[in-house]
Amino acid sequence: MRATLLYGAGDVRVEDVPDATISAPSDALVRVTRSCICGSDLWPYKSKDPDAPGQRMGHEFIGVVEDIGSEVTTVRKGDVVVAPFVFSDGTCAYCHEGLHTSCVNGGFWGVGDVDGGQGEAVRVPQADGTLVVLPVPVDDALMPSLLTLSDVMGTGHHAAVRAGVREGSTVAVVGDGAVGLCGVIAAKRLGADRIIILGRHQVRTDLAREFGATDVVAERGKAAVARVKELTGGEGAHAVIEAVGLGESLETALRIARPGGAVGRVGVPQTGDIPGAQLTFLKNVTVSGGIAPARAYIDELLPDVLEGRIEPGRVFDRTIGIEEVPDGYRAMDQREAIKVMIAP
Amino acid sequence: MRATLLYGAGDVRVEDVPDATISAPSDALVRVTRSCICGSDLWPYKSKDPDAPGQRMGHEFIGVVEDIGSEVTTVRKGDVVVAPFVFSDGTCAYCHEGLHTSCVNGGFWGVGDVDGGQGEAVRVPQADGTLVVLPVPVDDALMPSLLTLSDVMGTGHHAAVRAGVREGSTVAVVGDGAVGLCGVIAAKRLGADRIIILGRHQVRTDLAREFGATDVVAERGKAAVARVKELTGGEGAHAVIEAVGLGESLETALRIARPGGAVGRVGVPQTGDIPGAQLTFLKNVTVSGGIAPARAYIDELLPDVLEGRIEPGRVFDRTIGIEEVPDGYRAMDQREAIKVMIAP
Repeated sequence: MRATLLYGAGDVRVEDVPDATISAPSDALVRVTRSCICGSDLWPYKSKDPDAPGQRMGHEFIGVVEDIGSEVTTVRKGDVVVAPFVFSDGTCAYCHEGLHTSCVNGGFWGVGDVDGGQGEAVRVPQADGTLVVLPVPVDDALMPSLLTLSDVMGTGHHAAVRAGVREGSTVAVVGDGAVGLCGVIAAKRLGADRIIILGRHQVRTDLAREFGATDVVAERGKAAVARVKELTGGEGAHAVIEAVGLGESLETALRIARPGGAVGRVGVPQTGDIPGAQLTFLKNVTVSGGIAPARAYIDELLPDVLEGRIEPGRVFDRTIGIEEVPDGYRAMDQREAIKVMIAP
Repeated sequence: MRATLLYGAGDVRVEDVPDATISAPSDALVRVTRSCICGSDLWPYKSKDPDAPGQRMGHEFIGVVEDIGSEVTTVRKGDVVVAPFVFSDGTCAYCHEGLHTSCVNGGFWGVGDVDGGQGEAVRVPQADGTLVVLPVPVDDALMPSLLTLSDVMGTGHHAAVRAGVREGSTVAVVGDGAVGLCGVIAAKRLGADRIIILGRHQVRTDLAREFGATDVVAERGKAAVARVKELTGGEGAHAVIEAVGLGESLETALRIARPGGAVGRVGVPQTGDIPGAQLTFLKNVTVSGGIAPARAYIDELLPDVLEGRIEPGRVFDRTIGIEEVPDGYRAMDQREAIKVMIAP
């Protein structure tokens, strides 16, 4: 089958790999019908050591169940399913607490002998705990929005939850990529009164406004902090969503948080330390967030997608076939596209 | 009147200063009957630039109201009162939210023209918002425990609250100083099942056990992390109280937190950055806490002190007179004393 591998910075290829097959009784075999490229894929795309082995890519997908192992009970052949970006057993203490990303039997797509999502098929470990059946046909018009439940919408939601967004909150979102845009959707959905997005790409900030952003701050660094303070009567935002991961963006997020507020960080950190140990101490600003347990949120978000109350699929502004994946990476890296969907 | 000033590292003196007097209609004049030395006083005691002006010291005190400004309504002459370590107006939005340390009219003792607590008397700004009347005589046997409501007990409680301690929690406390010990009391009071204290001074860890600690870890750094993991089935503690403030202790705190758990940090940070941006991200560990709004907690903790359910005053193991304050600093710095009380 065809699948995506990353060999080095800028060097992504679609190649023949061994066909995905069931290998454990808890596996399912899923034929991928939709997948996509993640902003977090761009970090290794920029930096991967070319001497390390090629790495299977992709961790967001929807597909049709083609086969199941003997122990699988919650999905059947022919089911249309969505997979979160971490697989999990659904039964351990962490899964019961909604922290599926810390599942004791969980893991990441594309690691070891586990397939990546940017390919024709995937062996899904822990199928019962991982997959969620979608009550729609495989070519449903909602596919883009349903696909975001794999990661980007759940990640934006996680940031909003961990930042403590509630009815009436003033929220700031640092970053206008697909996660930041989904953070806007999540903040609006949780009742935020005011949503300030920090970004400078008008196509994206225009979409943010359609999703519910009330203010756009194009400045960066100190100027951005000053502008957010000005917009909030000198106080800052109750809840800040950090959707980039760089040290500078995290520092901006901490500086624009109101005393007693919180930062929900979901940008994969490209920094070793969290800045502002003293600043956050004096302001009692909580730093929360992390890798989003997308599986935990699918049940809650799915009805809103199915009934059209949220449209996170609008973050996809380009659709390509599997052979065009290298160009999809290039387009996202060069900010030609917000987020690229892969359809067979 | 006599008051304490810090001139440089190790150079603390008791000197004559101008008598405290009412200067604003919202002031009260309090004759100090009990004050103390704080672990956080030891940071400037170790490091103060001798070329900077002498600094008035002390931010924890109980006393008798000697005079009030014309606008003061909640305290009267003769009242026995406790002051939290930050003064606040009690009326702004932050005070209403329980974040008195961010009060728009608040401030710190010993800064500018505000007296420090380690002296004979204090002009208390924002007296209505700041002072709490104690329903006991000035020489009540509970004075040591009541004095801890100024700071150290409220600070331990803040750490426990921000670390998310609840019924059944496994809690780890990093640091066996007075704040760490009060953190143990707070964790026990909030229902923790298991309380692991990290410390190596047996007098202190013995007291921690009396306060409710179930385990003592004397190791430091990686060995301490390994030991806490071993004690918690490999998982770590749900809630971690960081009561030191050094980069190393904060890193230990983050490493011993269970995935999905939280660190409540109340040790005044001696580090610019919070370590472990990636570690906390992968584990979804929340970093919370900060300077404790002690005023917010007095109403909740006072009944437990008055009725003897908690005895935080046991952290005081030495009582001195005002002229002995320099030796009190020395004793705490050399760990001869856990916490030193000053009585007239």
